[in-house]
Amino acid sequence: MSLLADLLATVFERATKSKPAQKWDESPIRELVAELISNSGEVRGMVLARQILDRYDAMDDDQKRDFFTFLASDMDIDAQAVRNCLTEYEQTPSKATYRAFMDATEPGRQELVRRLNQVPGATGNLVAMRSDLLKFARDDASLAAIDLDFRHLFASWFNRGFLVLRPINWESPAHILEKIIAYEAVHAIDNWEELRLRLQPSDRRCFAFFHPTMADEPLIFVEVALTRGKSSSIQQILADDRETIDMGEANTAVFYSISNCQTGLAGISFGNSLIKQVVQDLSHELPELSTFVTLSPIPGLVQNLRAQGWTDKPEQTTLGQLAAHYLIDIKRDDGMPIDPVARFHLGNGAMVHAVHTDADLSANGLSQSYGTMVNYLYDLSAISQNHEEFGAGKIVAASPEVKALARLGANIVSKDPGYVQSAI
Amino acid sequence: MSLLADLLATVFERATKSKPAQKWDESPIRELVAELISNSGEVRGMVLARQILDRYDAMDDDQKRDFFTFLASDMDIDAQAVRNCLTEYEQTPSKATYRAFMDATEPGRQELVRRLNQVPGATGNLVAMRSDLLKFARDDASLAAIDLDFRHLFASWFNRGFLVLRPINWESPAHILEKIIAYEAVHAIDNWEELRLRLQPSDRRCFAFFHPTMADEPLIFVEVALTRGKSSSIQQILADDRETIDMGEANTAVFYSISNCQTGLAGISFGNSLIKQVVQDLSHELPELSTFVTLSPIPGLVQNLRAQGWTDKPEQTTLGQLAAHYLIDIKRDDGMPIDPVARFHLGNGAMVHAVHTDADLSANGLSQSYGTMVNYLYDLSAISQNHEEFGAGKIVAASPEVKALARLGANIVSKDPGYVQSAI
Amino acid sequence: MSLLADLLATVFERATKSKPAQKWDESPIRELVAELISNSGEVRGMVLARQILDRYDAMDDDQKRDFFTFLASDMDIDAQAVRNCLTEYEQTPSKATYRAFMDATEPGRQELVRRLNQVPGATGNLVAMRSDLLKFARDDASLAAIDLDFRHLFASWFNRGFLVLRPINWESPAHILEKIIAYEAVHAIDNWEELRLRLQPSDRRCFAFFHPTMADEPLIFVEVALTRGKSSSIQQILADDRETIDMGEANTAVFYSISNCQTGLAGISFGNSLIKQVVQDLSHELPELSTFVTLSPIPGLVQNLRAQGWTDKPEQTTLGQLAAHYLIDIKRDDGMPIDPVARFHLGNGAMVHAVHTDADLSANGLSQSYGTMVNYLYDLSAISQNHEEFGAGKIVAASPEVKALARLGANIVSKDPGYVQSAI
Amino acid sequence: MSLLADLLATVFERATKSKPAQKWDESPIRELVAELISNSGEVRGMVLARQILDRYDAMDDDQKRDFFTFLASDMDIDAQAVRNCLTEYEQTPSKATYRAFMDATEPGRQELVRRLNQVPGATGNLVAMRSDLLKFARDDASLAAIDLDFRHLFASWFNRGFLVLRPINWESPAHILEKIIAYEAVHAIDNWEELRLRLQPSDRRCFAFFHPTMADEPLIFVEVALTRGKSSSIQQILADDRETIDMGEANTAVFYSISNCQTGLAGISFGNSLIKQVVQDLSHELPELSTFVTLSPIPGLVQNLRAQGWTDKPEQTTLGQLAAHYLIDIKRDDGMPIDPVARFHLGNGAMVHAVHTDADLSANGLSQSYGTMVNYLYDLSAISQNHEEFGAGKIVAASPEVKALARLGANIVSKDPGYVQSAI
Repeated sequence: MSLLADLLATVFERATKSKPAQKWDESPIRELVAELISNSGEVRGMVLARQILDRYDAMDDDQKRDFFTFLASDMDIDAQAVRNCLTEYEQTPSKATYRAFMDATEPGRQELVRRLNQVPGATGNLVAMRSDLLKFARDDASLAAIDLDFRHLFASWFNRGFLVLRPINWESPAHILEKIIAYEAVHAIDNWEELRLRLQPSDRRCFAFFHPTMADEPLIFVEVALTRGKSSSIQQILADDRETIDMGEANTAVFYSISNCQTGLAGISFGNSLIKQVVQDLSHELPELSTFVTLSPIPGLVQNLRAQGWTDKPEQTTLGQLAAHYLIDIKRDDGMPIDPVARFHLGNGAMVHAVHTDADLSANGLSQSYGTMVNYLYDLSAISQNHEEFGAGKIVAASPEVKALARLGANIVSKDPGYVQSAI
Repeated sequence: MSLLADLLATVFERATKSKPAQKWDESPIRELVAELISNSGEVRGMVLARQILDRYDAMDDDQKRDFFTFLASDMDIDAQAVRNCLTEYEQTPSKATYRAFMDATEPGRQELVRRLNQVPGATGNLVAMRSDLLKFARDDASLAAIDLDFRHLFASWFNRGFLVLRPINWESPAHILEKIIAYEAVHAIDNWEELRLRLQPSDRRCFAFFHPTMADEPLIFVEVALTRGKSSSIQQILADDRETIDMGEANTAVFYSISNCQTGLAGISFGNSLIKQVVQDLSHELPELSTFVTLSPIPGLVQNLRAQGWTDKPEQTTLGQLAAHYLIDIKRDDGMPIDPVARFHLGNGAMVHAVHTDADLSANGLSQSYGTMVNYLYDLSAISQNHEEFGAGKIVAASPEVKALARLGANIVSKDPGYVQSAI
Repeated sequence: MSLLADLLATVFERATKSKPAQKWDESPIRELVAELISNSGEVRGMVLARQILDRYDAMDDDQKRDFFTFLASDMDIDAQAVRNCLTEYEQTPSKATYRAFMDATEPGRQELVRRLNQVPGATGNLVAMRSDLLKFARDDASLAAIDLDFRHLFASWFNRGFLVLRPINWESPAHILEKIIAYEAVHAIDNWEELRLRLQPSDRRCFAFFHPTMADEPLIFVEVALTRGKSSSIQQILADDRETIDMGEANTAVFYSISNCQTGLAGISFGNSLIKQVVQDLSHELPELSTFVTLSPIPGLVQNLRAQGWTDKPEQTTLGQLAAHYLIDIKRDDGMPIDPVARFHLGNGAMVHAVHTDADLSANGLSQSYGTMVNYLYDLSAISQNHEEFGAGKIVAASPEVKALARLGANIVSKDPGYVQSAI
Repeated sequence: MSLLADLLATVFERATKSKPAQKWDESPIRELVAELISNSGEVRGMVLARQILDRYDAMDDDQKRDFFTFLASDMDIDAQAVRNCLTEYEQTPSKATYRAFMDATEPGRQELVRRLNQVPGATGNLVAMRSDLLKFARDDASLAAIDLDFRHLFASWFNRGFLVLRPINWESPAHILEKIIAYEAVHAIDNWEELRLRLQPSDRRCFAFFHPTMADEPLIFVEVALTRGKSSSIQQILADDRETIDMGEANTAVFYSISNCQTGLAGISFGNSLIKQVVQDLSHELPELSTFVTLSPIPGLVQNLRAQGWTDKPEQTTLGQLAAHYLIDIKRDDGMPIDPVARFHLGNGAMVHAVHTDADLSANGLSQSYGTMVNYLYDLSAISQNHEEFGAGKIVAASPEVKALARLGANIVSKDPGYVQSAI
């Protein structure tokens, strides 16, 4: 990672160096935007782009909302122009008519964002800008559409082929590590000593994706425990006093936490690439590793049990069966699993491998799943087929054990849950 | 540069490592393309993309032409769908209708190229693919349009903010240096010893732009001579037996060669950024440098003189005046200078600084300009204004000396050239 | 730094990789040593050296003491052999007789240490070994001599030309930063947040010397505050709520803490090189910096005042005068200043620049110097002369202000201090 | 390698940066030396050391010889002082008396060389200085002794633990590659295209040792061909038109050339470490490699055959037998093999594995061994034992095949060679 930072520092240095030279432009931001869009010169363009980004940074929420409303209304497509160009292209297909059509169908705000991105280091600003936009778009449907423009561009810029996987460890730069502390979203890291326990032992790994133009910002990261046999609880993995195992003994990699870092990159999915890349890299580094599983939360379990009438935590055995049933059988209207984490991993081609009760005794773990967790198995030889069957037929891949559990769970549910509960 | 290669090697290693695993798919390429476009899964998508790229690489010219024709015809927009979506969006603007409109207006081939680029290292393949396309498009207008799709995507991917400037010197990796030999387009480098003369002396510099996903391929590079006073001939700069000057003495940087390396990136302009970035970096490193000039060819001079009736090389003084006149006064119908190199540098905000006869006595120099060359001056404090005045009013910035020369040249031309020639 | 770690990781990886292959050798360590010394083969030598180092690591204090006693007694020179070889060399000077003389005068333990160092990564072990030795040598004069052998070798290995200066900042690897926390010996760093305050602000710098074979271990580091004007107290420099100043404003670099990290390198002085190198590097990076001073403790002041009869802290003005007098006039028998920090900086060619009372209100600061501190000025143009005059004539370079203060201090002291105190 | 250069560039930059500041000192060099030895201050010491090195560089051969004679005569030990110190140490062993003894037994020239080495980058200068010294010492026995002082210091500085192994390939910096061309001593490389054939194909490798303070200078390098089965001729390995084999197919690494680069490091052996390190690294990278052999010249074969009366090249079969006999049975007076290359590899623990006639048809190959070459096998599991048996009993390890050949060769030789030749 440090190499990355070092290398690409050039980009940021330029950004920093050139900053002081520019003085604040007092013109209305709409004028700056209009000039940037129309202006074809790079010098002036860079100055304008820098100004607009700086001005945006200094805005309060109302001003930002206004700015996005301006993008939505004033920088939208011109329907009549599209129609005209389309007709011309249909009648006389040529480079010129196609170019005119392309120009007409792309709203000015896309070109704006593209030009803003010419400033070195601007990508990070634009990601932050989209993070604001997504917040406003929740309450304002008229802004939701323009997010599609951002997303369209970001999908190009953050193309999988541009991402760089780097290990994060105790030798990583502190300014990256503090972001791991800040961004860990699954099992919180409270301080540097807790971070050290996750990174320094030789049987712990962490990997992150970076983008060359945001070298100081991890995009997504995954934490891995190397174990002998599968871990059946997160307490065991995070225990302060556990013994580090010798690398020769480890046969399993447990992905116990995966966190997206940039809200401004929502919907630009990296997670599946990350896990598969790490599986591949770890297999190569440690050929003894034979099993790659997650230890994942089941965020919707309690809510679903309540909806079925379970007012209290079921007894352990029953809970495991109900959890298996929930993961495998409970679907949304579109036939996809109701559990979002299940959708993610099954969509990646993983399979439901094992269910563990009492596996996450944290307040959060208890409230979302009565402490139950699940292993999703990443079997490189089966991923492709799992993925396709899941995509085509919504078929949930699962181990025989979990399938058996799920049938038992289904049986319980098919009876009157109230009855079951009192009978147990 | 070597750092860059080293770091980003991860990307390429992945590409290389994953290659052998895949077996050749014998399905028609159209089927692979159709599946890639429709398929939403990453695993299968990567395999398909790799297959398509490999298949393309193995095609002969006719097959490639067929492939592009298929992109042009079968993967074009559906005009009726565009019309319908547009109407819906006009009537009910919403995220959903806007998304439908965006999807309809973007031809499938853009999504294809984007998905092909998910394979690590694919960017280089796609640049090569566009290089082929441009070749075919010369003879086949129907292919010219689809280049706009490539160009649209490439402009995003090769955004200025993503480029990394690296010095090229005698400590650069050999596999980069051999590309400098191959790509030098202005003053040919015949072998490693000639290359050494351009890179090793402390008063010679070279800089190139690289893109993170094509770490082994320079995109464009510029060669610089640090001199005491302006150089008035390329012979002097490239002389085998010249004396290296001490860095303390140098007050001028002469940009004597700039070469684009990737035909597949034609029209994605980096040249102006490169020169300005190098001016900025050199100013910082060597504060004694006070003047930044090019020593540039005048490719259209002889042709223009011939058009005016000059059948032979004019005498030196006259030639200088005519060259100044040509650079400043001879315009295209759109008011822009007729000389392409002049358009480039004036468009960047440089000014015509001095004209030198007998400055390039190579066969090529003599045939294009009777050996005449020109200095364009990059004065950071004037670039922005020059650029705007040139853009707005087609005003050619020039030194008083060159302006005076140009007036004399104009006088000569206004008379009967035949007469002038015989009078001299 | 991270680059260093990265690069030289090769060395350590080899060490780590080869470790598991070796099984514990149960022979007495003396036998292993004897075999290592006599054995000329590298393969067996590496195995033996690794064994001896591992065995040493596992020893308790008594065993270590025995080991050093063995080095002192059994691996000493053979006086008669030296005498014989010397006579032969005197009579017949030749390569052969000189070689025999060299061999005879070097005790076997030097060759032992040299051979131990052939194991990759062993240098760090040997530095730790000497750290133990120095501890034992305090109570056991017979061991003090053999430290000269270690020191002789270390002086070669840690030759100034082999040291690498690296900035330490918030982007440095965490495993290096935790060593900065651990090794800070002047103004303690209690946790990561305090460390961040010393490293992250743009007006704070830190530099360390590293040795290529101990890439994860700083040897010595210095902390620097960039300020506008001289800082007159450490409280001001370390204040949590101070404002970071703009780099354009800074004109002074204050070296406020310098810490040796390796007790096993005691007496191998790097401190003077470090400060001078940092002065040179900072001058180059920030040409606006015109003054380079330390803000140093005066560790012996209170003790000296007590010896003169001052039972309590003198009043501020008087304290400043007495401190100046102490620094400039109070000498050891050999004519050198009695204050060790003064000896260090004056020996480096610095001068006493200003004295500040109430400058270090920590418990330690109050107890050693009633809170008084001193600026030593590093003026690159005067360092060489200061150094020589101090070396030759024990002349203490000082500013006119401090000299004047010192005269006032001398006057006070020349009177009856009891009298002075009661008079104030 | 490039990383190394990059990192350690700091060291050289300092050297370069500080150079211009110093003006030439006209005092006799003896005075500079005397001052450097006596002076304890670092600032002045660095200036003096730089001056002495620069002055030395500017000397002609006679002046250099004078300089070494001065080191030999004026900077030798003082025998009486040694005697006195020794007696004192014997009578009163203490730190002080031991220190005095150490000081007395080390000639001043050692301290001189150590102080010269404080200048960053000086190590390279001192290696060059020793290269001169070795040249003069050939004709002047009085200078041979002082080389022992250089060698003593160099052995410490170039300790195995300080060396860094780096691959050399087509991505290495050009200024390193040109040194590979220059230093290749076994099978000459005539130009960059030949170099490319040795480095670029994926079945060719090259590795070099570097020292951190001489980052631009390989110390020794080895060239490796990865092959399917053993190569029986150098022509085959170096053939321009050979087919690169797939890495999956390679099962053998052939070390076909090993070259020392620095004459000034003669006698500081790295070769054995290099080969063993490369064997270890290649085994790790390519686990399919099962055999590590050299393809080595037999430099003394023809000379030895002539001495036995063979005036012409024997017929092939006979030649192979005689070569085997020569390698295994022909010894020096000390019992070591007469062939220097055999001594080197057997001393490393390798064994004679196979003999090939017509294996080097170059002029040099024919003249030294009638084109015969030999494979020495590095079998990691046998190296240690081979090495010890060779060291202890001068036993030459060899394959049964070669032993059988050698017996046949011995039989031939035991008869009248003249007879044999005519009989064949």
